[in-house]
Amino acid sequence: MAKSTEARKKLSKKDYEARVPELRQQLIQLQVQLKQAPFPVLLMIAGVEATGKGEVINTINGWLDPRGVEVFAFHPPTDEERARPYMWRYWRCLPPRGRLGIYAGSWNTEALREAAQPDADPGVFRHALKRIAQFEHLLVADGVLVVKCWLHLSKAAQGERLKALEANPRTAWRVTPEDWKSHRAYERLDDFGQELRKATHREGAAWHVIDGDDARARNVAVTEALLNAFAAHLPVQAKLPRPSRPKTITPLCPEGLEKLQQLKLPKKLSAAAYEEKRDKWLGRLNQLVRRAAVHQRSMVFVFEGWDAAGKGGAIRRLTSAIDARDCRVVPIAKPTDEEKAHHYLWRFWRHVPRAGTVTIFDRSWYGRVLVERIEGFAREDEWQRAYTELKEFEHQLTEGGVIVVKFWLHISKAEQLLRFRHREQTEYKRHKINDEDWRNRRKWAHYETAVGDMLMLSRSSEAPWHWVPAENKRYARLQVLKLSCKQIEAALEKD
Amino acid sequence: MAKSTEARKKLSKKDYEARVPELRQQLIQLQVQLKQAPFPVLLMIAGVEATGKGEVINTINGWLDPRGVEVFAFHPPTDEERARPYMWRYWRCLPPRGRLGIYAGSWNTEALREAAQPDADPGVFRHALKRIAQFEHLLVADGVLVVKCWLHLSKAAQGERLKALEANPRTAWRVTPEDWKSHRAYERLDDFGQELRKATHREGAAWHVIDGDDARARNVAVTEALLNAFAAHLPVQAKLPRPSRPKTITPLCPEGLEKLQQLKLPKKLSAAAYEEKRDKWLGRLNQLVRRAAVHQRSMVFVFEGWDAAGKGGAIRRLTSAIDARDCRVVPIAKPTDEEKAHHYLWRFWRHVPRAGTVTIFDRSWYGRVLVERIEGFAREDEWQRAYTELKEFEHQLTEGGVIVVKFWLHISKAEQLLRFRHREQTEYKRHKINDEDWRNRRKWAHYETAVGDMLMLSRSSEAPWHWVPAENKRYARLQVLKLSCKQIEAALEKD
Repeated sequence: MAKSTEARKKLSKKDYEARVPELRQQLIQLQVQLKQAPFPVLLMIAGVEATGKGEVINTINGWLDPRGVEVFAFHPPTDEERARPYMWRYWRCLPPRGRLGIYAGSWNTEALREAAQPDADPGVFRHALKRIAQFEHLLVADGVLVVKCWLHLSKAAQGERLKALEANPRTAWRVTPEDWKSHRAYERLDDFGQELRKATHREGAAWHVIDGDDARARNVAVTEALLNAFAAHLPVQAKLPRPSRPKTITPLCPEGLEKLQQLKLPKKLSAAAYEEKRDKWLGRLNQLVRRAAVHQRSMVFVFEGWDAAGKGGAIRRLTSAIDARDCRVVPIAKPTDEEKAHHYLWRFWRHVPRAGTVTIFDRSWYGRVLVERIEGFAREDEWQRAYTELKEFEHQLTEGGVIVVKFWLHISKAEQLLRFRHREQTEYKRHKINDEDWRNRRKWAHYETAVGDMLMLSRSSEAPWHWVPAENKRYARLQVLKLSCKQIEAALEKD
Repeated sequence: MAKSTEARKKLSKKDYEARVPELRQQLIQLQVQLKQAPFPVLLMIAGVEATGKGEVINTINGWLDPRGVEVFAFHPPTDEERARPYMWRYWRCLPPRGRLGIYAGSWNTEALREAAQPDADPGVFRHALKRIAQFEHLLVADGVLVVKCWLHLSKAAQGERLKALEANPRTAWRVTPEDWKSHRAYERLDDFGQELRKATHREGAAWHVIDGDDARARNVAVTEALLNAFAAHLPVQAKLPRPSRPKTITPLCPEGLEKLQQLKLPKKLSAAAYEEKRDKWLGRLNQLVRRAAVHQRSMVFVFEGWDAAGKGGAIRRLTSAIDARDCRVVPIAKPTDEEKAHHYLWRFWRHVPRAGTVTIFDRSWYGRVLVERIEGFAREDEWQRAYTELKEFEHQLTEGGVIVVKFWLHISKAEQLLRFRHREQTEYKRHKINDEDWRNRRKWAHYETAVGDMLMLSRSSEAPWHWVPAENKRYARLQVLKLSCKQIEAALEKD
């Protein structure tokens, strides 16, 4: 299960003091190397009470250059955190590439705390473990180094430690009734700890069980765990091939491409018929969004589609039914440098709406399996993995009460040409077309394949793709309104 | 006072519909131009109840390209906001350069809401107005365009509007008892509004009083106010000279330079004497920081000083007295591109600590009057203005309960050379020295002048500068601990 239970002898003060300067120098060396490395390091200090987790953190933090390290502690969730899906608060607390985060408490702590409640449902704990395993897997797959230390102490040793702390007037304040409570529940908590370690142990995020009995040996063991893991991780990451542009785009799921090419593209809808129906759906959507807000549900809309397929226009009609004060449109273009320094999903987690509000993404996380696949911004293993990661991301949103509505706006290649030309010829539309649009157009076949794969491989019943024929703008806008209403209605009915 | 009370006639539906396409096109044009502009635009919609502020926002928002605009609404402050100085929540909601923010409510709304409370202190309102005027002045001086619309309605017209809304079953829900309450208090609220507009009207942040009686005329007037202000603002901003590197650095306050050069630099302190005193002060600091946390006070430490003056070492000793879980070290280097897209103080407001926690800045906002002055990253008017701006920033922190402790670590030029050489010759210190350090060293005289000016011109009793002779590292570290204790103690005593 866990890497090894490192049963250590006591370390004399003399031996410790002889050892520390070298460890400190190695830590600084680690930070210097990390600064240039393409990944962050997460050092997590977990374990039973009274093993000196805080002490270990303060000691190692004091040995490090404070400029490259951040300590994360988790207080009870703030209201901004409670108003969003469960993992949002942890995504906020991830160090960027090149930096070290030390976790005094983490997603694990919260899961254990909940499991220890008297009326806790074991199913909830198992679910939490699954979520943690997925989260850490996501990070590890991205190259993040996660070093997890579990500080262990026998029940007897823990009791002695608590008594000793209480006996000393300078440390007595640190022992709370909670500590004694967790001491009495030692066996039960120990079981949860074992279950947690078993469920979340993996390469790149291994658990190091460390005896917390001797403070000096403990400090050394934690430091060594970090140093060794880093020394093993760095060369592996450095050797990873850089992504490169693929020569051909081979469909993973040819059925998607086929379906896409066969999609019927209705051409006609009279202005009168459109306006009547539009107003009906707009009214209905407005009511639904307000009803959702009352129920503290939030919404995420995703618009993907060909250039000039009419995403902007469809978004505009959609927002006209929603109070602008509760709605935000997030255009996804090149990531900022802060975004580039994090996992590719970080920039989307940032914008996950607060309960009762709406966020519309104009292009989205699906760029990972479209432009990043085609232009070679992501390695093949990276974008292939993304189908699962994106599904999991959306699952976490829906589980957190977010209604996720996704559209693919489809037009033919001929129609795109007409629209590009029209944009070039229309004064106030000229800013909407540039060289890149023409470049992307030349890669139509590549995109078509990638889109087909995306639509098939990221299917889910929770957050289905709506294929919207957009050859006729009115028809497409109406479809967007109608499909939005239907999906929101169905989601609210389940409440 | 306000630019003009634009008393408008009613606008017929026909005239309105003839006008709208042109306005929309101009708005899109504005957004296209804004995208490349070096400033953001803030459009604020304020005014009395039932003038259709929400309608105007939804209408204009619908006319704009949703990709370049964000609507900000302010709900009651969240606990993350309440745990920080008053203006923090508004600094979070500023659009970056090139984008438009529409404010449904703002810092003004909150001030008016508080003023309208039955037991409100008029002094508090006046203070809020002063703070708003300073905030907007800060933005305007940075080139931000602030367009403020006050929608006006007579008491009689307001009563009729509320009745009409109530009579229609589709809009009745929008009228709350609060609305009728504010209708009864019309005169009083109107006085507050006038006082607000008078106190916060200025070039670049002018109030446009707009009659809210006719919805169509109102929409047009708000749009025109925005378009006209932008048309006037853009060429002025485009013509501003780019900052350039100054040839000479002339002291603004020669006394500072003199004092700096005369600062006594004690050389000796035995290791034994140091360690004894250090432990005493560390213990005291630890207790003080915990006491501050109990009182929900937070702390900001600022470390400025020559390269190799020992900032890192001093910070390390300081953090060793503070629980790492409540303490964050923020190194200030080049701003990220998100930071560059905002006011220069934005990146510091981001890191203002939550009540009860500590943030240590390793270099700080004083870069504005040091490196930015010397390297010509800021224009002369910009860095000269900064002395006042920085003082005001720190005033807002202290007013919000933050204890601001500032250090200038001083060494001689000869000592710096010794330390640079030592760094070059010591394997594990080599990463701490680079070409830029040597380049900065050649500008010693320039920096000396700028530092002298900084220390004198940003003096304040709330957040005093501590001049720390750092020729002897032990002495400097001890001073930092001691001065920190004294200042925190004094601040807590006032509670």
